[in-house]
Amino acid sequence: MKTQPSLFTSLSPALLHLYDLSDSVVVIIDVFRATSTIASALHNGARAVIPVDSVPKAIEMSKNIDGIAAGERDGMIAEGLQHGNSPLEYSREFIGGRTLVLTTTNGTRLLQMALDRNASTIVAGSFPNLSAVCDYLLAQKKNVVLGCAGWKDRFNLEDTLFAGAVIDRLQEQFSIHCDSSLMAVSLYRQHKDNLLDFAPRLTHYHRLVQRFGLIEDITFCLTPDAANVLPFYKDGKLIIKK
Amino acid sequence: MKTQPSLFTSLSPALLHLYDLSDSVVVIIDVFRATSTIASALHNGARAVIPVDSVPKAIEMSKNIDGIAAGERDGMIAEGLQHGNSPLEYSREFIGGRTLVLTTTNGTRLLQMALDRNASTIVAGSFPNLSAVCDYLLAQKKNVVLGCAGWKDRFNLEDTLFAGAVIDRLQEQFSIHCDSSLMAVSLYRQHKDNLLDFAPRLTHYHRLVQRFGLIEDITFCLTPDAANVLPFYKDGKLIIKK
Repeated sequence: MKTQPSLFTSLSPALLHLYDLSDSVVVIIDVFRATSTIASALHNGARAVIPVDSVPKAIEMSKNIDGIAAGERDGMIAEGLQHGNSPLEYSREFIGGRTLVLTTTNGTRLLQMALDRNASTIVAGSFPNLSAVCDYLLAQKKNVVLGCAGWKDRFNLEDTLFAGAVIDRLQEQFSIHCDSSLMAVSLYRQHKDNLLDFAPRLTHYHRLVQRFGLIEDITFCLTPDAANVLPFYKDGKLIIKK
Repeated sequence: MKTQPSLFTSLSPALLHLYDLSDSVVVIIDVFRATSTIASALHNGARAVIPVDSVPKAIEMSKNIDGIAAGERDGMIAEGLQHGNSPLEYSREFIGGRTLVLTTTNGTRLLQMALDRNASTIVAGSFPNLSAVCDYLLAQKKNVVLGCAGWKDRFNLEDTLFAGAVIDRLQEQFSIHCDSSLMAVSLYRQHKDNLLDFAPRLTHYHRLVQRFGLIEDITFCLTPDAANVLPFYKDGKLIIKK
């Protein structure tokens, strides 16, 4: 009997060190909203998304390559930038053929942590590219770590629900000895038919909707396959894996 | 309208630093098996349980006070000790009137972390003392942090289920803006009527039952109010809070 590859879920960046990334495909998950925005921009024709960890870096890098500097801090467009972290901001007319240089509170930080820990392969996942992520992981047959970005190192429900959605599709093909993964898939199966109804119970929903009125963002970020491409990290950039 | 006290759940010792413990009652949760064993020993008449962080300390301390040195490492009785971390080991005949000096992989370590972080009040919780914990928290009307011990900093289902059981009873009396808590209570409500049937899905179940045959321990550890006392930390000891 052939040994199946392993699958683990890291519920917070503060738990990422517990998992061996060097032999794994790491899926960076930041449903509200970094990885949804990355999928959206690439799906709409962006040449690449370059994740950076600060606003000054985003501005400098974007000048050098004639790209769009964008990002958020605490849910708002970051000070000094004109563009934020909304997936709906990056229409084909605006982002097609251009490069997005993005800095966010949680998602881009987690990606940097995965790089620092020598992740073998890094892709970005969220409901808008659920199928692309699952198809890739099934084809690779490598070990997987689903890395939830959370909110400032705290657990969040939306990233965990996405991890559960992936596990729901992959469970038979992977060896899963991981309570985080079992919890995630159990939670997803409980709520998968009413994700949008469940959304108002998420702490991040209140941050985004009640403070910033971003209900259309939430809807997009919870719609499976709305931007079904696979953002793949290579040489400092996220590009579409064909 | 009076402001309700807050309730947060820390899913792993590696996340405990995210919560303010100085103004909170911290519930140390290590369902399999430290906090279940602590409740059992005190319920059966132990004068106190002294948590220590190493086997040599357990031996030295127990000699000084004519107590029982006990503990586990990786699920087994720790090398150098004659007694382990099984709640069923501490019958009234054996432990009544004596002091238990206990060292464990996760639970006693988390307790020490809570002390280091200046927790206002520390109690120990597990299914065998569910009602005692809930009654105390309801009476105190203070902020609460439910601290899951996990397994070597990894999330585990059984501690989370217990956190969910507490939240299930307290939800109306506390202000809960915490996705970990919402997940825990959702998970608990999904499985509360069949906890013993759910147990074989837990990674720790396999560790304890398949490797060590501890099915009776598991059953005890998942039985609400089987040892319904409140272990309260004071001056280096856990004693019954009357």
